[in-house]
Amino acid sequence: MSIQFGPDYVRAIAPYQGGKPIAEVAREFGLDEAKIVKLASNENPLGMPESARQAMLEAVADIGRYPDANGFELKQAITAKYGVPQEWITLGNGSNDILELAAHAFVQPGQSVIYSQYSFAVYALATQAVGGRAIVVPAKNYGHDLAAIANSITADTRLIFIANPNNPTGTFIPAADIEAFLKVVPRDIVVVLDEAYNEYLAPELQYESTAWVREYPNLLVSRTMSKAYGLAGLRVGFGIAQPAITDLLNRIRQPFNVNSLAQAAAIAALNDSAFLQKSAQLNADGYRQLTQAFDAMDLEYVPSYGNFVLVKVGNDDGAGARLNLALLKQGVIVRPVGNYGLPQWLRISIGLPEENAIFIEALKKALA
Amino acid sequence: MSIQFGPDYVRAIAPYQGGKPIAEVAREFGLDEAKIVKLASNENPLGMPESARQAMLEAVADIGRYPDANGFELKQAITAKYGVPQEWITLGNGSNDILELAAHAFVQPGQSVIYSQYSFAVYALATQAVGGRAIVVPAKNYGHDLAAIANSITADTRLIFIANPNNPTGTFIPAADIEAFLKVVPRDIVVVLDEAYNEYLAPELQYESTAWVREYPNLLVSRTMSKAYGLAGLRVGFGIAQPAITDLLNRIRQPFNVNSLAQAAAIAALNDSAFLQKSAQLNADGYRQLTQAFDAMDLEYVPSYGNFVLVKVGNDDGAGARLNLALLKQGVIVRPVGNYGLPQWLRISIGLPEENAIFIEALKKALA
Repeated sequence: MSIQFGPDYVRAIAPYQGGKPIAEVAREFGLDEAKIVKLASNENPLGMPESARQAMLEAVADIGRYPDANGFELKQAITAKYGVPQEWITLGNGSNDILELAAHAFVQPGQSVIYSQYSFAVYALATQAVGGRAIVVPAKNYGHDLAAIANSITADTRLIFIANPNNPTGTFIPAADIEAFLKVVPRDIVVVLDEAYNEYLAPELQYESTAWVREYPNLLVSRTMSKAYGLAGLRVGFGIAQPAITDLLNRIRQPFNVNSLAQAAAIAALNDSAFLQKSAQLNADGYRQLTQAFDAMDLEYVPSYGNFVLVKVGNDDGAGARLNLALLKQGVIVRPVGNYGLPQWLRISIGLPEENAIFIEALKKALA
Repeated sequence: MSIQFGPDYVRAIAPYQGGKPIAEVAREFGLDEAKIVKLASNENPLGMPESARQAMLEAVADIGRYPDANGFELKQAITAKYGVPQEWITLGNGSNDILELAAHAFVQPGQSVIYSQYSFAVYALATQAVGGRAIVVPAKNYGHDLAAIANSITADTRLIFIANPNNPTGTFIPAADIEAFLKVVPRDIVVVLDEAYNEYLAPELQYESTAWVREYPNLLVSRTMSKAYGLAGLRVGFGIAQPAITDLLNRIRQPFNVNSLAQAAAIAALNDSAFLQKSAQLNADGYRQLTQAFDAMDLEYVPSYGNFVLVKVGNDDGAGARLNLALLKQGVIVRPVGNYGLPQWLRISIGLPEENAIFIEALKKALA
């Protein structure tokens, strides 16, 4: 018998299933990379902002040096934009890093962590990695049921993950509901409010979560530069919380977790409001394009507040995988969500108008 | 009283103290950045190889996309260079990531982890972060005492960190001694062999640790691209181990831990043997330059096999901090090692000949 290493809870983890990279699909299906459309990872179809590209290229000269472990200049930019002190900021290798740091910092084996059914897969992975006991609260209309989440708190709950908007379903929780929830959560339980898709919210839905951070010492707001800011390949995100939380996250953070080019590019991107606006507009247009097509095809979808749409492609539990394969063969990569317990659905990232059109045609063909 | 979050062992961590960034020293001491010499972080003074810079720039176009979570092409390059299957490779956000993944994958709170006195600070941090019980084995001539390490194994030991060459002391363990050690360690205890400075070893001291990986299922070899390969700012390292270990590390690894540009640059750097050779030669010359100066100044130093030298700058426990400050004021950044229990010493990274010369003059002035 071979030797087994590590605790049972680590051996039980099923690794994260990301969107298939274009190169991998080209290899597997013998397709031309240039003709493949990838709508699988909620990336910004515009790519990175030109401002960030310039800033990054200027930082290339110093790449033999370690990054600034304290991220002084990037924290200055976050401070300027969000009006929070530097001591409230934790930089992450993407916001994935922030989510995992929270689990590592606050949860010991056996303690419970709460998150919603159909919420982001990394909450489950981060919980398992530290041997936490997951309390998965049934979703309501594919989104968070905050009342049920509050009711599921136990004596050993250390952490609650809330995504707003949620991935992969795209649901949104109004600001007033989140604030009411924060009021009832005991102050010694850390609430992670994952706002990865915040920048896609319409102006009238935007809210100021940093104001809550001032009021609730147990709130950690998580943000990413991988979505609307277009820097997924560089890996940068950040957390905002009062020092009692931030100090702990920084104690266990890998000192050089955010690379030099990511720091430089992030500063430029944070200040590029024109790019953000353009990205949000493109996304709103693409959302109309996709959902009008779904309506015309009589396909059910979950109204989305992010840069993606969850659409039901069949009534049998093989539908998602079957349609996914049919799309892959046509060079269109989307995201099957069977691992989320949604085997009849696919998640489609909103792309450029022409990419959306290619997907729609491929889907029609696959369904025919 | 304010609320305390997280377990005691996380709150007890003192964060890693990296080398001071040039910009920070310029701010603090009112110096011109261009005139500052940084010999504090064991970086390659040549910076990144031109081959890697080109490869990286070609990858910039795709930065809006997530990195390849499986690092297919980079693993191919590692496979080609080290002759190990892709299933034996774990990619890391620097080798720091590999060291931390090992602690997270194999150690539960209360279980013991063994490392040597005066060995790399991250071993202690990674152990503390998971609530491990550190067994710190006294050093022998500033290096690892493998017999004492083997004797200190307890029933609950899950992990042993060995650095070869060691940082911050620069000591080296001959291949035969490591192999003898691997033979006596129980097969259910993971041994991390941290070879961050391997590329600086003279050809006659080089050894093939991947051959040991084939023989010892409990061995994890850790390598970095931050030192001789000149990619510290990009963050990339890797681990090599049999699947029983590698599979677990990949289960808890953040899926996009290595950014796209790091993957592209690393492939080019791995294949650039001319750059490695040039770096090793520059380092050997710089080592002679520094140690001849120390000899002339009658300063004790530990013979080093890395790209740095540990030198004793005084006989009182304030000496390291005092000399460090005196050097900073002259615009020379080195590494004080009081946190390693070496308050009378400084660690000097080997730089370009002119940087070494500036340091030597500044040290003479500071000691006068």
